[in-house]
Parts: sequence; structure tokens; C-alpha cells
Amino acid sequence: MHDWIDSYEERDWQTTEDGTVRYALIGLGWWTVDVAIPAIESSDLGEVSVLVSSSTEKAAEIAEDNDVEHGISYDEYHDGAASDAYDAVYIGTPNAFHLEYAETAAELGKAVLCEKPMEATVERAEQMVETCEEEDVPLMVAYRMQTEPAVRRARELIESGFVGDPVSVYGANSQPLLEMIPDHDQWRLDPDITGYGTSVMDLGIYSINTARYLLQQDPVTVQSQMSSHHEAFDDVPDERSSSTLLFEDDVHMISTSSQRAHEDTHLKVTGTEGTIELDPAFHGEASLRLSRGDLTVEVEHGTFDAEREVQEVFDYFADRVLTDGEIHPDGRHGLVDMQVIEAIHRAADEGEPVDL
Amino acid sequence: MHDWIDSYEERDWQTTEDGTVRYALIGLGWWTVDVAIPAIESSDLGEVSVLVSSSTEKAAEIAEDNDVEHGISYDEYHDGAASDAYDAVYIGTPNAFHLEYAETAAELGKAVLCEKPMEATVERAEQMVETCEEEDVPLMVAYRMQTEPAVRRARELIESGFVGDPVSVYGANSQPLLEMIPDHDQWRLDPDITGYGTSVMDLGIYSINTARYLLQQDPVTVQSQMSSHHEAFDDVPDERSSSTLLFEDDVHMISTSSQRAHEDTHLKVTGTEGTIELDPAFHGEASLRLSRGDLTVEVEHGTFDAEREVQEVFDYFADRVLTDGEIHPDGRHGLVDMQVIEAIHRAADEGEPVDL
Repeated sequence: MHDWIDSYEERDWQTTEDGTVRYALIGLGWWTVDVAIPAIESSDLGEVSVLVSSSTEKAAEIAEDNDVEHGISYDEYHDGAASDAYDAVYIGTPNAFHLEYAETAAELGKAVLCEKPMEATVERAEQMVETCEEEDVPLMVAYRMQTEPAVRRARELIESGFVGDPVSVYGANSQPLLEMIPDHDQWRLDPDITGYGTSVMDLGIYSINTARYLLQQDPVTVQSQMSSHHEAFDDVPDERSSSTLLFEDDVHMISTSSQRAHEDTHLKVTGTEGTIELDPAFHGEASLRLSRGDLTVEVEHGTFDAEREVQEVFDYFADRVLTDGEIHPDGRHGLVDMQVIEAIHRAADEGEPVDL
Repeated sequence: MHDWIDSYEERDWQTTEDGTVRYALIGLGWWTVDVAIPAIESSDLGEVSVLVSSSTEKAAEIAEDNDVEHGISYDEYHDGAASDAYDAVYIGTPNAFHLEYAETAAELGKAVLCEKPMEATVERAEQMVETCEEEDVPLMVAYRMQTEPAVRRARELIESGFVGDPVSVYGANSQPLLEMIPDHDQWRLDPDITGYGTSVMDLGIYSINTARYLLQQDPVTVQSQMSSHHEAFDDVPDERSSSTLLFEDDVHMISTSSQRAHEDTHLKVTGTEGTIELDPAFHGEASLRLSRGDLTVEVEHGTFDAEREVQEVFDYFADRVLTDGEIHPDGRHGLVDMQVIEAIHRAADEGEPVDL
């Protein structure tokens, strides 16, 4: 128990402490500016050298504000501007633009760290994977739960039999999107940019990917239902969504997500011998609750807010890029989530189970 | 807040403190003997006057041990033995035997309190309802969550808009049945006696009924998946089950239940403005957690263990019988759960959504 507590937040994945990956950050929304830039600044293995946005002016201004050397436009980026100044790109644009920036990065021989979901459609995500493979550049999808200590400790416990045989998984992820971003024309509600929809693409993906990571297996069949109610959600099918997913070893997952509900992020794995619960799970400060027999243990640690979680993602990625190591949430791994999400939408649309 | 806390455990349903309902208890399993008898003994409006079991000897012996006047056999019960000594029957036998005892009670003009699920099939539950209606005897299904203070307070809060518009419901109910009752030939695993299956009939029903009670609406469409793994579950389809249920106002419910998993009972209603969570929910000592805006409140009270919950059920029933009052979880209400459970089994079997 001493060992477990003392090593709780350790980076069990770290293989090097030497070197620096210089990043071009593409897409300067609040997440990139307010979370990713400070996270990389605090990180051991990364630094921001280029910012890429819609215009040279905007990029240059934000670059100056944040002490970053270069600010360039999307067009300049595609033309190879400042390409000697960075080793890797971070793609934080809306979903449907990920592919084009990844393609340019691959052509320039740069490593790619892409936000989740990978793209708007399975086909475009596949194209991203294939391009990066052809150009032999590393591609990682920024699933920050996979380097969150609470989630990594949960996975170790499950692997070592703490819950017995996993029986079921519950995943919930909801947020009041219109209170966070009141604009009804925002890209997350525009199917041309978000892709299949909004709740599953943006929120349900956390539950699905974290379940896959914890169980080390993938869904084989999905069923789902979706509905939209508020006028801002007229163009997307899933203001609310709920699904059942059957995993390879017959583990039953139930998942719910909504873009217009009180914030609630929760993941629970129930097995024959115990349960492991993350509550909250996904939006920083994940906290673990472990039950087995008659005993329940709460594990609380306040240090891993969203910025620290993002720092872990960047340092994990940099560690692998610097050592040419294997990347775990790689493009092929992210592609499975895209296939699952597409299947969930098809299952809701057709009103029947969809096999993967 | 003072008022709320002071009135938390109040019986807001009580209409009389006068009178006594004398019960014949039918089916002397551990639940009846260890929980129901002491619960009625502690209750204000009830007393046990007759015990009914497979043989006169067994019934008489348990009657003597528990200071109950009469102990009679099932056959004697059907012949009207000791019928002057009781006003109502409590049916705590395995599912497929509920109907016959209810029919005799109705013919004898006795009020009926029947354990949930009402019967093994929808048809037999319908027959129970019709018989009790024809004979004009009160029929109640013993859903003890509906008189659990935490659940009643949750319903008041939802009704008053605490969570905003309800968006989703999560229900979980699992237990390690074979650790509790190691016999592989027990009735809960025998489809002739349990009915459609085991996890949904015995456990999922708590989530479904409590959601119906809290939301004051019923499911209109269900989807589900089921699987059995351990040899003891060879004859029933649902060692594990998971479902999505769409309610009248498009509230999405996800539900999971398993008879071979770590004990876990949990209910959560998420709305546009807040969440209400019961964790644990169903096996005594239900505890409420309320979130709205940035505030979370835990409500804990240790007094309502299973016995106290059962006492509330018996006193509620007695209150209604003594005053000829309206019974809320009546036969027609219980019948809806039977229809939902049957639909969940059919949906799993046919692999498609089933409308109710």
C-alpha cells in the first residue's frame, strides 16, 4: 500500500529525460491557447516554437503574447513556412480540418499529435493513418485519459484481477455546451465540421476510449438511441445519446452522453469480485474509488487538472518521438473509436444492432 | 433547508394511525422470516397472525418460533383455513406461484400485498390484476423504493425542477447470487419459476421501477443485450444484461444488472440543470447525492436498512387498506414493469428495439 501510494503519480511510461520536441500548434482556440501552451511550457520535453492560425496577423499576435518565435497562417504552414523551427505538430482545429494539417505534416516529415476524435469520418481518419504510415511519421491521438495516473492505476488493478472478471462498464459524459459556448452556429453543431454528430464524437468518445484502454479489448456490437430537442441541435442527431456496447469478452458496456445537460463525467467497471469507479472521470482531477469484498477505498489527488493532464500527453508523445518508441494511442487505435462512433450513429439511425 | 432536513424521514403518505391489518404471510423463505416478520412486528399498523408454508408442520414450527397464532399449509390456505384470522396476505413465494395465492386471497376477500416481480409472465400478472379487480380487493406490489425516504425526496426534487428537464437515467443493480445462495438449482435460475430470466426480473426491475417512479413516466421503447456464462445460468438468458430505455419525454435510460457480479446498486438522474444520485440505491441505507450548479450535497441517513424499508411498505399498505385509500404501486402499475421486462427479453432475443 505504501508503494502504491508513493508511486501513484509516477510516470511509469517515461523512458527518457533528455531532449526537446519543438511544436507547431495548429488551430488557436481557447483549448490550445489557454491549456496547451501553458501545459507545454510546464513540460520537460517540449517547447512551442510555431503557432498556426487563419491569418498571419492573428498567429503573430498570439505568438507575441505567448513568447513564441513564429506565427504563421494555415496557407504558409501548407507551403512549409518555418518548417525548420518545429519537429512535430499538434492539431487542435475542429474535427473536419485535422486531415489536411496531418497530411502536410507527414509530407514535411513531422510527427503528428492529433486531437480526438481523429477526424469527421472514418474514411478521413483512415486516410490520415495511411498518409502517416506512408511517410513514416509518428501519429498519436491525444487521449489524455491514457496518461492520467488514476486511469493508469485503474488499468493495472483490472489487469491484476482486482475486480475479478469484468462484467459491465458504465460511462457517462455530459456538459451544458450552450452555457459554455452560447453560439448556436458553433462548429460542434455543424455536421460538415463535427462529423457524425456531437455528443458521441465529443463526449461519448471519452467513455468508449477509456473503457477500451482499461479492458484492453474492443467493442464487437453496438446498439444505440439518439435524440435532439433544442433548436441549436437541429442539424445533429445526438443532443442526447445512449448506447450498449458488447466487448470481445462479453463485457457489457452502457454509455450515455449529452451536450445539453449538467456536467457529469463518470466511469465504472464492475467485475465478479469488485468495482473500480472514476467519479469525476474525464474533466480533470479524476478520482478513483475501489471496492472489493466489503471494503471501499477512495483515492483522491488534486494535482491533475486539465492542464497537467495535457502536459502528460505532450511529454508522453515527446518521449516516444525522441526515442522512436512505440506510441500506444496511435492512429490505428484512434481509428477504432471512429469506427465505433460511426457504428453507434448507424445503429441509432437504422434502429438495429451494428457489428464491428 | 431546516425544514427539509427535519422532515426528511417523515411519512408524507400516512393518513391514519388507527387500526391493525392482520397478515397471512405466504412463502417462508429467509426474506419473509428474517426481514418481513420483524418488520411487521415493529410496524404501527400491522401484525402477523398466520404463516403459510409447504407443510402444516413447517408452518406451525415457524409460527411457534415467532409467536404467531396460526401455521397452515398451502393446501389448507386454499381451503380457507384460518381465514377469519387475517385481513390481508403477503405473497413472498417464488415468482410463478404468486398468482394462485392471490386468486385464493381475492376469492376470500382479502387484500393482497405481492412481492415484485408480480409473476413469471405478463399474462399471469394480468390475470392477477383482473381477478383482484373482479373481486374488488386491494392489490399492491411491494416496491419498497417507493416508500424509501431518500427516493421520495428525490422525486419531490425532480418534480420541483431541481435537475431541470430530466435528460438521462442510469440504473445499476448487481449481486453475487451464487455466493449468497450457492445452490445451482435455486428457483431464480429456473425459467419455469422465475419467468423470463433472472437479472432483469430480480434486479433490473429496481432500476426500471424506481426510474418510472422518479420521472412519473414510462418507457416507450427498449433495446437490450444479454448473456450467460457460468454453468449455473445455462437455463436463463441473462446472467448479465444491459438495456437502453426511451421514456415518454425522450428521457434516455441506460440500465445494467447482473446476478454474478460484485454488489453494486446505483441510480442517477441527470437533467439540464443538475443530477440526483442514489448510491447505494436499492439494498438498504439508500443515500442521496445532489448536484446543481457547482454545488454538491451528500445526504446520509443510516436508519433505513432493509427491515425498516419493509416496515414502511407494510405500513403504507395497511394505511391504504384501513382507509380504503388509493394504492400507488398497484397491480396496473406493477403490470407495466412486467411488460417492460418482457420487452427487454424480446429485444435481446430478436436483436432489435421493441416498442411498448
